[in-house]
Amino acid sequence: MITFENDFIWEVDDKINSAMKDAFEKILDEKEKGISGYFTLGNDSLPIMEAAQAYAKTNAFVKKSDTIVVIGIGGSSLGTKAIDSIFRYKYKNIKKMLFLENPDEIDFSEKMEKIVKEKTLFIVVSKSGSTIETISIFKEIIERFSLDYAGEDKEQLIAITDEASVLHQFAQYYGIKSYLIPKNVGGRFSVLSAVGVVPLTIAGYDVKSILEGASTMVERFFNAKENHILKKAAFLSVYKKQTPINVVFSYANCLEDFTKWYVQLWGESLGKIDKHGNNTGLTPIGHIGSVDQHSFLQLIMQGPRDKTVTFIKVDNFEKEIKVPNISLKFIEKTDYINGYSFNELIDGECEATKESIIKEGINVDGITLDVLNEKNIGKLILYYELLTSLCGIMLGVNT
Amino acid sequence: MITFENDFIWEVDDKINSAMKDAFEKILDEKEKGISGYFTLGNDSLPIMEAAQAYAKTNAFVKKSDTIVVIGIGGSSLGTKAIDSIFRYKYKNIKKMLFLENPDEIDFSEKMEKIVKEKTLFIVVSKSGSTIETISIFKEIIERFSLDYAGEDKEQLIAITDEASVLHQFAQYYGIKSYLIPKNVGGRFSVLSAVGVVPLTIAGYDVKSILEGASTMVERFFNAKENHILKKAAFLSVYKKQTPINVVFSYANCLEDFTKWYVQLWGESLGKIDKHGNNTGLTPIGHIGSVDQHSFLQLIMQGPRDKTVTFIKVDNFEKEIKVPNISLKFIEKTDYINGYSFNELIDGECEATKESIIKEGINVDGITLDVLNEKNIGKLILYYELLTSLCGIMLGVNT
Repeated sequence: MITFENDFIWEVDDKINSAMKDAFEKILDEKEKGISGYFTLGNDSLPIMEAAQAYAKTNAFVKKSDTIVVIGIGGSSLGTKAIDSIFRYKYKNIKKMLFLENPDEIDFSEKMEKIVKEKTLFIVVSKSGSTIETISIFKEIIERFSLDYAGEDKEQLIAITDEASVLHQFAQYYGIKSYLIPKNVGGRFSVLSAVGVVPLTIAGYDVKSILEGASTMVERFFNAKENHILKKAAFLSVYKKQTPINVVFSYANCLEDFTKWYVQLWGESLGKIDKHGNNTGLTPIGHIGSVDQHSFLQLIMQGPRDKTVTFIKVDNFEKEIKVPNISLKFIEKTDYINGYSFNELIDGECEATKESIIKEGINVDGITLDVLNEKNIGKLILYYELLTSLCGIMLGVNT
Repeated sequence: MITFENDFIWEVDDKINSAMKDAFEKILDEKEKGISGYFTLGNDSLPIMEAAQAYAKTNAFVKKSDTIVVIGIGGSSLGTKAIDSIFRYKYKNIKKMLFLENPDEIDFSEKMEKIVKEKTLFIVVSKSGSTIETISIFKEIIERFSLDYAGEDKEQLIAITDEASVLHQFAQYYGIKSYLIPKNVGGRFSVLSAVGVVPLTIAGYDVKSILEGASTMVERFFNAKENHILKKAAFLSVYKKQTPINVVFSYANCLEDFTKWYVQLWGESLGKIDKHGNNTGLTPIGHIGSVDQHSFLQLIMQGPRDKTVTFIKVDNFEKEIKVPNISLKFIEKTDYINGYSFNELIDGECEATKESIIKEGINVDGITLDVLNEKNIGKLILYYELLTSLCGIMLGVNT
């Protein structure tokens, strides 16, 4: 379960109500006309997931592989990486995932040390099929591992791309397995298309539950059961000049890559010239509490009042660790936290921080996941995608 | 060598010149009166480094240990972690470093799996000596590993803290090795004090060269040979309302933790109520090129014009990787980059991005490291510390 709350300080007048109504109709229209395809990925990707599952079970090479290397950048890797980072700790016996994103010589060399050719499945992901970083890294992989993509090593390769792209043509020509990204799903909205579904399914993750969560969120939203998304989009749009920055504080280390995905989605979708020719956009910043809270909190409170703040927290982690009942001589003043769990400590900091920010009159909203499971993450992904679309509509930009 | 360039679009009038002169005098005064102690750490920390080196060579436990666990948060860990992340690839035979920062149950549990008590040195870092996250994690470590801190395991522990803090008293009482942080060095300016110097020296890094780089930068600055720092601080202060956000794009993955250190330094030092009672501050954002460039660039160009952008790049990495001369059927249009190195590809993107941003009239500056060595990183750390102090002076806040 995810709960959403906000304490926005504003008055919703008729004009805002009517803008929300218009935005809802516009997004409904985009869904029904198939202008944007991400809404239905929760269902549309089920057959892709099943196909990938079947492939993983039957293909001899995939069966023996223990590592998946995803070659892709931006929207082609960030979402997949975010999900891998969140659930990795739960699954010890699934395939390892490595991401080759930046053609960074040091990072690349470090990762190469971890790859054993005979055990590695390479998945090349590029919507256009010719992303320069991705194809250059792919070439280096071919050279380094003498990858006979036209012959005996072709089962070590999968391509994920748009239909009829140059990468798709390449894959078809040589009989390399490929999966397609729907044309009406933009790169940064593509995590629940083949882009994320195929590598995560083959790795062994419970993709079905993620897709279920996504479908649930979409259904609830279009049945007017998640109107807070509409309100948040309206609030952010109305106050775009006053608070152009949205800071997301995630109180869980494993959500760090998720915040990177959000920053990308938000920045690239909303930073655009609007229909009146004006520069428009909301600047996203991702932080991890409590680590970053020590520094950034002060900036939020004492710095310019140009920020809204979103707190994401998890109520229960599966691994509870309690601060032991130890009293250290001279450091007894920290004993008040003894017996509480680490998560209660973090949670307490999150709540205290939130309250002090609210007291300053800064606009805040909160997202609480009861547990860190696949369904909740599917919902959270769709929440952010819907929010981004709605902000775009209300800001008058084409996301 | 580091080179700095800027293309700020502004006119420096007498008022700005006089503000720069005043700021220079004020920072000189802070240095000479010892109000702030970070300026001289390049020299002051040499004896600490030597002591730590001697300790590492003679102490039986430290000699046999292969892992250092740093328990600390914010200013007590970010800088050390940044340096470890930058140079880790160069040294394969030094001690492994793990950082326990956030009391995050999943992250903590994952890291615990990597720790073998008999081979691990625990370093507790807290300026105040009673940071709640740090001491709580320390207690859990004591419990989990049955760490007899008062008796036979005391050699597995080092404390780094302010003189006479509760942690210092604790260490002294039980005869636990401790190193002190100078009182006049703030937490977020403390990376080159015992905070970073002790763990990095014991791990096996070339701390001497980092300190040398730091000293060089300070000396050059106070001899008026790095006046661009003063100019950048003046520019950012004068245009604090127009461009309150500074985005740092580092074109090297291993600088990611460095940008986190910068975000902390900048945010916490400059986000403050100024001497006139106004909310003041510059919002820092750290990104990695070319990964984040794909999304954030559009926001910078088409979004609100509230940002300055700093590009950090490295001319030569030690590991050159060239895009092989492979032509993939149907994807031939990517062949123009064949034969160029990964770094040339990234560098080309950096330059193209910079040019297109400059063309839009957005203010940009560049920092180029010829190589990624210790001396350059020492300089870069001091560059950012000096810049932060100067911005603080010019914004009228107490950093």
